Amino acid sequence: MSLLVVGSVAFDAVETPFGKRAKMLGGSASHFSISASYFTDVRVVGVVGGDFTREEEEVFERHHINLTDLERIPDGRTFFWRGRYDFDLNTAHTLETELNVFGDFKPKLSEEAKRTRLVFLGNIQPELQAEVREQVQGAELVALDTMNMWIDIARESLLKAIKGVHLVIINDAEARQLSNEPNLIKAARKILSWGPQALIVKRGEYGAALFTPQTYFAIPAYPLESVFDPTGAGDTFAGGFMGYMSSQEKLDEAAMRRAMIFGSVMASFNVEEFGTERVQRLTFDEINERFHAFKQMTNFEEIPFERAVQATG
Amino acid sequence: MSLLVVGSVAFDAVETPFGKRAKMLGGSASHFSISASYFTDVRVVGVVGGDFTREEEEVFERHHINLTDLERIPDGRTFFWRGRYDFDLNTAHTLETELNVFGDFKPKLSEEAKRTRLVFLGNIQPELQAEVREQVQGAELVALDTMNMWIDIARESLLKAIKGVHLVIINDAEARQLSNEPNLIKAARKILSWGPQALIVKRGEYGAALFTPQTYFAIPAYPLESVFDPTGAGDTFAGGFMGYMSSQEKLDEAAMRRAMIFGSVMASFNVEEFGTERVQRLTFDEINERFHAFKQMTNFEEIPFERAVQATG
Repeated sequence: MSLLVVGSVAFDAVETPFGKRAKMLGGSASHFSISASYFTDVRVVGVVGGDFTREEEEVFERHHINLTDLERIPDGRTFFWRGRYDFDLNTAHTLETELNVFGDFKPKLSEEAKRTRLVFLGNIQPELQAEVREQVQGAELVALDTMNMWIDIARESLLKAIKGVHLVIINDAEARQLSNEPNLIKAARKILSWGPQALIVKRGEYGAALFTPQTYFAIPAYPLESVFDPTGAGDTFAGGFMGYMSSQEKLDEAAMRRAMIFGSVMASFNVEEFGTERVQRLTFDEINERFHAFKQMTNFEEIPFERAVQATG
Repeated sequence: MSLLVVGSVAFDAVETPFGKRAKMLGGSASHFSISASYFTDVRVVGVVGGDFTREEEEVFERHHINLTDLERIPDGRTFFWRGRYDFDLNTAHTLETELNVFGDFKPKLSEEAKRTRLVFLGNIQPELQAEVREQVQGAELVALDTMNMWIDIARESLLKAIKGVHLVIINDAEARQLSNEPNLIKAARKILSWGPQALIVKRGEYGAALFTPQTYFAIPAYPLESVFDPTGAGDTFAGGFMGYMSSQEKLDEAAMRRAMIFGSVMASFNVEEFGTERVQRLTFDEINERFHAFKQMTNFEEIPFERAVQATG
């Protein structure tokens, strides 16, 4: 029962109509691992600078997240992102990006890391994703995330990386862009034809969908009256999904369906406060309560329709 | 077991990237009633001109749709709409609208019509919707549809009409516009606070959601690789929903949830061909097969998560 994530550990400065934070823990690997930590043992592969202090380290430690493979560059600075959201919280406006030590990031996996059962390749250069993939040949489930920038500037490498994984987890617009198909069902079919056994499409307020070559599963988002800070929602979803999968013996479709719900539950908490603040202090009761709510809000009785009179008309 | 619909009976000329029709049966009451006819007895209140021929009449007759309350103005012409869809089939571009006899439409209900158990007020002037509502005091379920134009130019009358119905069935953008709330959950809460017991929000390719003051139910759309002609999809959904409700003794939440599925099933067929062509020749097996598919694509096991080690950590 173990899970590896490769991605960014960062500091974020975020401004929304509801408040701001000048410097808080962020990055795909942070959101992912804190979320996944509720379900399984997680190990982070990433890089930080000398400004990454005991305080941030303790956040990971409290969640039993293994930082053995987190590289430290004492005379460098940690990846920094500054962004702003307007009342339309769907779009992040990037105000500043300092790659810092992340600019030269070459993931280095310890021998133990290479034997991890499940692996999440967070949104980094596709060439690096492929290199990491090569080193975890024994993994039972390798998932990959990406973003529009890599589709634009590194399409060929990205397609190669996708061919090598079991699962792709991207958003709606990325699926259409990646496949050049405006219809999402066609887009999904095309992406699956490249090799992955499954595709998860995140649709923000409209929920998420899981495609396999034979099946389709779709769920709504948890209904929230207000979204406070959407930063990291996608990685938090992926963390809940992969964390739950890691807790399961059988990595089958039934498990993936439940994992979709747990991923959505975790993402719904994530957006309620700044950064990882809400997800840092969850209880299992809170998680299970929202899991139950998902059942309530999607359930209906299957009773076929029969109307004798009309049928003969 | 009977259902009344007030709305337009029209001729449509439609052009899509996949073909065109110069003149075919259209209008909200046509799409609604043909869809509903699979589940119940339907009666249409509307108006047509002298160009409405035996051929169109026969379409309704084949579906046992009662046209007693369909007014005929022999020296007038039937409402005509000409529209075009580009590859983005989400937006209809109106090229021509001739209101003709529909411009002076005053719904007249026979005594029998006034005793109908369920009523659908299709998208017409809110003042007329309210007038019809007044005449069906005994109806157990009255639903109302509207459009952005009435929200713009007849907001006050529309709010009055909404106060008088049990159920509002509108699309995503209309719900936000009507309530002045960009967040759909807040929008729904506001609309329900005006009086209706339930609100259905249609979300196109993202499915549909049912809100009541206490509950939330959301379903995906049936996954279609290609949409041929979306004209009338909303009315076909409403027809499936209200038709199924009309077939049920108990008009409770469980019935509404199943009705949401039947509505979505009917809408999914509607968009596969021009106008009402596909929905005109459905079988109960085809309908039930897609109902079953909805169960398959939304079902998951409810197993709460427990992790003893972490819980004590």
